[in-house]
Amino acid sequence: MNCEIVCVGTELILGDIVNSNASWLAEHLALEGIDSYYQTVVGDNLKRAAEVIKNAAVRSDIVIITGGLGPTEDDLTREAIAEAFQKKLEFKEYLAQNIQDKFKTWRRPMPEANLRQAYLPEGAKPILPTVGTAPGLILEIEKKLIFALPGVPFEMKKMFHENILPYIKERMVEEKAVIISRIIKVWGLAEADVYERIKEIVSEQTNPTLAFLVKNTEVHLRLTAKAEDKEVAHRLIQREEERIVSILADAVFGFDDETMEAVVGDLLRRQHLHLGVAESCTGGLIGHRITNVAGSSDYFLGSIVSYDNEIKSDVLGVSRETLFTHGAVSSQVAEEMAIGVRKLMKSDIGLSATGIAGPSGGSDEKPVGLVYTGFSVKEFCASEKYLFPYFNRDTVKLLASYAGLNTLRLHLLQREGGGDDFA
Amino acid sequence: MNCEIVCVGTELILGDIVNSNASWLAEHLALEGIDSYYQTVVGDNLKRAAEVIKNAAVRSDIVIITGGLGPTEDDLTREAIAEAFQKKLEFKEYLAQNIQDKFKTWRRPMPEANLRQAYLPEGAKPILPTVGTAPGLILEIEKKLIFALPGVPFEMKKMFHENILPYIKERMVEEKAVIISRIIKVWGLAEADVYERIKEIVSEQTNPTLAFLVKNTEVHLRLTAKAEDKEVAHRLIQREEERIVSILADAVFGFDDETMEAVVGDLLRRQHLHLGVAESCTGGLIGHRITNVAGSSDYFLGSIVSYDNEIKSDVLGVSRETLFTHGAVSSQVAEEMAIGVRKLMKSDIGLSATGIAGPSGGSDEKPVGLVYTGFSVKEFCASEKYLFPYFNRDTVKLLASYAGLNTLRLHLLQREGGGDDFA
Repeated sequence: MNCEIVCVGTELILGDIVNSNASWLAEHLALEGIDSYYQTVVGDNLKRAAEVIKNAAVRSDIVIITGGLGPTEDDLTREAIAEAFQKKLEFKEYLAQNIQDKFKTWRRPMPEANLRQAYLPEGAKPILPTVGTAPGLILEIEKKLIFALPGVPFEMKKMFHENILPYIKERMVEEKAVIISRIIKVWGLAEADVYERIKEIVSEQTNPTLAFLVKNTEVHLRLTAKAEDKEVAHRLIQREEERIVSILADAVFGFDDETMEAVVGDLLRRQHLHLGVAESCTGGLIGHRITNVAGSSDYFLGSIVSYDNEIKSDVLGVSRETLFTHGAVSSQVAEEMAIGVRKLMKSDIGLSATGIAGPSGGSDEKPVGLVYTGFSVKEFCASEKYLFPYFNRDTVKLLASYAGLNTLRLHLLQREGGGDDFA
Repeated sequence: MNCEIVCVGTELILGDIVNSNASWLAEHLALEGIDSYYQTVVGDNLKRAAEVIKNAAVRSDIVIITGGLGPTEDDLTREAIAEAFQKKLEFKEYLAQNIQDKFKTWRRPMPEANLRQAYLPEGAKPILPTVGTAPGLILEIEKKLIFALPGVPFEMKKMFHENILPYIKERMVEEKAVIISRIIKVWGLAEADVYERIKEIVSEQTNPTLAFLVKNTEVHLRLTAKAEDKEVAHRLIQREEERIVSILADAVFGFDDETMEAVVGDLLRRQHLHLGVAESCTGGLIGHRITNVAGSSDYFLGSIVSYDNEIKSDVLGVSRETLFTHGAVSSQVAEEMAIGVRKLMKSDIGLSATGIAGPSGGSDEKPVGLVYTGFSVKEFCASEKYLFPYFNRDTVKLLASYAGLNTLRLHLLQREGGGDDFA
């Protein structure tokens, strides 16, 4: 069975937003071993959307449509599906009730427009939304499976996992092959460097296959194995994974869905340590990333974003002399920031980052992209220097936040391995 | 004339990368007033790619293809174009020479595979690449314009601007029409609420047209006018823009490319005010967003991310009694945080946000999604309560950061308008 992705939305056709729904769906279909040959984007236009959906159902077994299920007159996916398969739209009282109940919980009157979402093409089954008001739908037409999902990523992903995927799997003919993937995540090495180090392994690969991908500033290696059963596929992957990790060593920070901030969080929790952060050029991004992990309050006390130098000295206690002599972007200030926040917050660890995010503020001696990270525990203090190539301000901030988190990760790993960073 | 975008690449079909080429091309076509109705993605498969290209040339006047022009056997766009229009591929000696010259400058031997890039479908004109070795191509078939560009964004964008766009413009029948767009950005109202308030205007619109779009948590209204000249188009837009803004009032925070954080930054700079922030549930996101704006050090002193309650009292001076009596997520604590950070940083304004980002930590009385913002100047202090629906932790953090920034914006606007927030 193969699947086609259809995304409906004038915002996509106008390039207002990047089509991340299509890539997310494509990735998750691939992970499940479901082939996907086409993706089509069409605007909020009834005739064209209907034609695209009809055409997709001719050439593919499964069609997943996203977007166009909202309450406004622009939202035409329901009508387009009805038109493509010559079905009537039927008003469903229980869907209307469900929408009305939502507004009751929110203590807001329901706009009349939302009743548009209570219509379904005849024969379609609804998928009730969790948060919003747009129901998804499932329609079977002559052995073809047609799914429509809201364009809001959260709702789309949830319905895909909970409703669409189980539905497809049930219908899939028992293929005697399983496909399993594993992503190895690396930070701190360029893609070409990773390639150079493992090129012998790369050249040998047929099953599992090995693909490179740069995502944000991480390098991802994706191993994909095909075998008769899960166990064999796992074994195939495990063997290559071990070879790769033994070469790349601690440049590998995680696997599959793991994020740098979650890996660091796990290390802190496991070692019963509390963290305080002092940020300058990252402006709060390190704290933001750490607190993206649910439960981070177990180990994260807070962050002092000392953007102005007065805050560095008044709040963090960085000496004015150090600031004057070495400048705010220096190893000395990075270390004093880390020590200062550790003492201020009475934390086990102080972590800091200071640098020049650009576009202005750089000099020959201290160019834009220069970043120092600092690390402090009671018995020990260290700093590290990074010189990142300048693409734009956002990227320097992102790289600096990675540098800080990775510094912390490596120290925590060393401690876990019995290193002498800590007493 | 209307245009269709076709992207060729198995990496897109597998969701390994997001299709940013399609959105970039779509955006730039829209900016030039060239209509675009479809985008199609197809993998590195000769039969399917040829079929998609053929179909595109039937329904659209212009087809822009990206990707698949590399040197490896996966790169099939040349062959697919030839097959779609039943043309032969011809070897071009001067293209081969051009590629060989490139490798000479790089002082590397030319791999045999690169000679694949010296072939063109008969009748096609090449576009020589600037950096890489892949020529683009232009093919005219019965009044249809077919363009193929490399998938590498830098090369694709350069060829689009320097070769494709001038070519299209020359061929465009003098339509005597200009198209101009304007985006009105709203925060704090749901899409359906915005719709309800301006539905009379919506129902009247034909020129300019009016489209709704939800982006992050913002509601965008796009007015697009078509007229004989720029001035008339501007006037058409201006009239409707004024009507909409007069209804939505200060729920409109900006236009076109403006971001909430840049708008707030402009207000602070104009009023010569310095800002200190105290964050809890946002974890640093408010500081991160403010410092995404270049030059924010002019008005932003820093942020205290007081994730732990001890930091709220020890660093910000929130009274332990207030914390105990009202809890960390309360209007009282929000206000004391704002006052505390203002005093600590000696800033003109203190801004705070405290809330429950979830997934855990909520109760009947204080559910996940509950957020308070605090605002403090010397003469005045205020707080606001928000109850956001819970989608996920990231969204609550994002909404809370918007709530904080928007609180600040509204107070600054009031001050500019001579309100009595400030002495």
